[in-house]
Amino acid sequence: MTHPLLDKHRSTLDGALQAIASRSFWSPYSEMPSPRAYGETAADDGKQAFESHLGKDFVLDQPGQLAGDAGWYDKEVSPYGAELNVRYPVCEPEALVQAGLAAMKGWQAVGAEGRTGICLEILARLNAQSFEIAHSVMMTSGQGWMMAFQAGGPHAQDRGLEAVTYAWREQSFVPKETVWEKPQGKNPALVMKKHYEVVGRGVGLVIGCATFPTWNTYPGVFATLSTGNAVIIKPHSNSLLPAAITVRTIRAVLAENGIDPNLVSLCVAPQRNVTQDLARHPSVKSIDFTGSNGFGNWLIDKCRQAQVYAELAGVNNILIESTDSYKAMLGNLAFTLSLYSGQMCTTTQAIMVPAGGIDTDEGHKSYDDVCADLAKAVERFLSKPEVAHAVLGAIQSDDTLARINAANAGEYGRVVLAATALDNPAFPKATVRTPVLLACDASDEAAYMEERFGPVSFIVKVADANAGIALSERLTTEHGALTVGLYSTKQDVIDAMTEATWRGKVALSINLTGGVFVNQSAAFSDYHGTGGNPAANASYSDSAFVANRFRVVQRRYHV
Amino acid sequence: MTHPLLDKHRSTLDGALQAIASRSFWSPYSEMPSPRAYGETAADDGKQAFESHLGKDFVLDQPGQLAGDAGWYDKEVSPYGAELNVRYPVCEPEALVQAGLAAMKGWQAVGAEGRTGICLEILARLNAQSFEIAHSVMMTSGQGWMMAFQAGGPHAQDRGLEAVTYAWREQSFVPKETVWEKPQGKNPALVMKKHYEVVGRGVGLVIGCATFPTWNTYPGVFATLSTGNAVIIKPHSNSLLPAAITVRTIRAVLAENGIDPNLVSLCVAPQRNVTQDLARHPSVKSIDFTGSNGFGNWLIDKCRQAQVYAELAGVNNILIESTDSYKAMLGNLAFTLSLYSGQMCTTTQAIMVPAGGIDTDEGHKSYDDVCADLAKAVERFLSKPEVAHAVLGAIQSDDTLARINAANAGEYGRVVLAATALDNPAFPKATVRTPVLLACDASDEAAYMEERFGPVSFIVKVADANAGIALSERLTTEHGALTVGLYSTKQDVIDAMTEATWRGKVALSINLTGGVFVNQSAAFSDYHGTGGNPAANASYSDSAFVANRFRVVQRRYHV
Repeated sequence: MTHPLLDKHRSTLDGALQAIASRSFWSPYSEMPSPRAYGETAADDGKQAFESHLGKDFVLDQPGQLAGDAGWYDKEVSPYGAELNVRYPVCEPEALVQAGLAAMKGWQAVGAEGRTGICLEILARLNAQSFEIAHSVMMTSGQGWMMAFQAGGPHAQDRGLEAVTYAWREQSFVPKETVWEKPQGKNPALVMKKHYEVVGRGVGLVIGCATFPTWNTYPGVFATLSTGNAVIIKPHSNSLLPAAITVRTIRAVLAENGIDPNLVSLCVAPQRNVTQDLARHPSVKSIDFTGSNGFGNWLIDKCRQAQVYAELAGVNNILIESTDSYKAMLGNLAFTLSLYSGQMCTTTQAIMVPAGGIDTDEGHKSYDDVCADLAKAVERFLSKPEVAHAVLGAIQSDDTLARINAANAGEYGRVVLAATALDNPAFPKATVRTPVLLACDASDEAAYMEERFGPVSFIVKVADANAGIALSERLTTEHGALTVGLYSTKQDVIDAMTEATWRGKVALSINLTGGVFVNQSAAFSDYHGTGGNPAANASYSDSAFVANRFRVVQRRYHV
Repeated sequence: MTHPLLDKHRSTLDGALQAIASRSFWSPYSEMPSPRAYGETAADDGKQAFESHLGKDFVLDQPGQLAGDAGWYDKEVSPYGAELNVRYPVCEPEALVQAGLAAMKGWQAVGAEGRTGICLEILARLNAQSFEIAHSVMMTSGQGWMMAFQAGGPHAQDRGLEAVTYAWREQSFVPKETVWEKPQGKNPALVMKKHYEVVGRGVGLVIGCATFPTWNTYPGVFATLSTGNAVIIKPHSNSLLPAAITVRTIRAVLAENGIDPNLVSLCVAPQRNVTQDLARHPSVKSIDFTGSNGFGNWLIDKCRQAQVYAELAGVNNILIESTDSYKAMLGNLAFTLSLYSGQMCTTTQAIMVPAGGIDTDEGHKSYDDVCADLAKAVERFLSKPEVAHAVLGAIQSDDTLARINAANAGEYGRVVLAATALDNPAFPKATVRTPVLLACDASDEAAYMEERFGPVSFIVKVADANAGIALSERLTTEHGALTVGLYSTKQDVIDAMTEATWRGKVALSINLTGGVFVNQSAAFSDYHGTGGNPAANASYSDSAFVANRFRVVQRRYHV
């Protein structure tokens, strides 16, 4: 049994299988928005496709759309201040659930081969739409253009493909049938034919976040879909367009292949209680969530009928013990703290520096030297406006803006570098802020020991390297972390930090001074989250992310 | 990197890997208690080893043993009425947790290769102890001898090996390290070295049941252990000896291989609250449980710090629509209902028969005919006392005896066949009962729609085959089932039942008339439970049973 689309995309699947086995560099989707990779007209076509959505009804032909104005939502706001005015269909969640369940039978029938082939086709089609999706990600999330293209397009597609690949590997282990022949000594053997059917669990709900509407959504969508389930995507109400475009493409590819498109639908639900009711629906069997601890833990506590895969808040941290590349280290950190104004779940919040300072290739630097030099590095990095706007993007939410203001006002600690407001000439209404750097003592736990999402970082004075390692482990174990970094020239410090991250279960980046940043992870090679500390109970992607999304139902009879 | 014990047992592991891929018949452990398989003196040696425990202190040299009499538990009771008088060490759970955590570092260091090799050695050693363990299982659970040998010995070892094999497959997918080289156009490539460490989550608690002290315990023990975790086994307080023997053997093999034996310990805790406190311990990261819905759901609800793998109650059911082997069908059912007095989580409780009767190779049989003929088949099967005692064993608990008495008194429905008490000449104090068969209408839901653990079955009159299929699906979906059976000569009925079991997510046995029984599952081929209905949230074994018991922690740096 195979499927034409599995054959068509076999080399992509084989490449991805090889990549998750070796975890070396690999990607089928070009991260460069170049004509060579995407075609001469791709950039213009994509921009035009994006603009064609503005001011229009985004028709999806889903069941249960409410009548009249209640059937359309138009409150999406761009952090760049642009007018989007897209209207999205608002549908009765129960109708989406029932339609999804009804579509599952045909989806089961095409088998893992058909599901995988169709998912690979969907990803190829989304890849061809990368410019359109990039504009939609940029304008809804506030990301800069290049980041919106890469993270919103090919990198998100990579993470989706990665999930499909893990799901395929696990499903392909289950034989379709077997003949079981048990010897009975001198008597005839017992012989049975057995069949094994991979069945989805039910409807999977994927709840997106405002900042990464595709990157943090595609893993759950494709893990759930390829394992035989229906999917309802509930995007953040300010980042609808990327999800709507994605859903439309998925539905088109499903329909082309004889699958009821209602298998995948968009749920527009600005009211929290609508999402809560849907999340507790008895037919919702998995929930993928990226967002706050408050809602994430509510989902984990209350939605006992579902497997919940949650990425929550954390306190990412770095210890600077010593370095042989002081300038390059500061440059690397300046980029990390500035990228998308720190509105990433992987951005460093706590930078620990020993009270006695650090040894560097430029001599000994005191704690205050490091604070001042890091502030200067950030200022220097953002001194050219065109660089600053490309890297910073815009502040996505009023809550983040309020945290920046509070930090600037000295509410969280001594201000080493204040955030400044920048004017983006291309988007005069955009809210743009540079990062704020604060200095505090390790004992000022109330300041730095909870997530301050956005461009707010603390340079935490620790007694010494050992105290820093212990604090890093405690932050990770008690408050969670997706990323930890270390700068040290001493192998014993590196070894001690390595063991601390084994206990805390967090990825460690050591001595990053070049073009790789602690807050970036590469699909197929870097696990995003370990699933072993409070910042996330799952990882993008591993076997555990996919293996419990389907079940195997067997039948047996004598032959 | 390899390990001498992995090399030693490589052919077993290779066989098991092949078996889980093909799911055809395979087992490395002979199920026949024969001298050829186990050696000329094995039977005598095993009996002697078992008897050497009686009336003695079972010393385990664990930390935290309480002082004086409080440090020993001696209340284990045999369903056969035999005097065991073994005293087991009672240890402070906190001491077991801390000692387990401390032992994890060395266990992590030997890698998946070392852990898998050592687990394979443990299983080989347990296999050599099969007679000793069989006697201990028989005398603590009340199983008959042959069942105690097979299910308690080689079949339990099979399930343990199966879990080790799945765990090995998943761990072996994670490369130890890689070189990640990302092209940068005309600039030098970005090159990083990355390491991936498989780390256990913490302490795994395995809570055993009274009836299958090894078969239902080994999957959780070996899945948890081989993935890098410490294990605390908390057996049922009436089935301690098989677990104690197992723990002693595991600790011995660990110590022989330089691993701190406190990695695995026995927790004797007759008081429910001690187990509850332990289950909620922050360092307990997984719980494997077999038992009642009450305690199982308490664990799922309250122990949020742990992954809970639970096998709970269900209402296993069979639909008889038609048959071309009436006599053989009745014989097969008679064995199923009698085996270990129905004290199996897989025994059929509800046998659905259409009101209009069934077509058979012996002509049409009315509903009442089927009731009467099944009763006769059970009576005939148990008419020889030596067969009856070998098959029935003894009633394990007073609760089960009470249910039999209530059924006999007509409290649950019309008595078709009453349970009778038998005297076992070898064990005069044993409580032995034959099965009780009840007749009821599908509408008498209060009678049959909850688990009546033990030899209490209902012949449920349903309107027709379709009503039976619908009822089977409802029983499975709402109340759970580990096993469903069907007797039918019609392909459309078989197809409809097949689809119902896909929706209900339960294994289906079709037209069993020979030496395979609906309540028996074979490791490496039959999944025990699907994890997709209320009877169990996990399956023995699949990838989902192992993949979330470890996490991968990476580190990366430029080279």
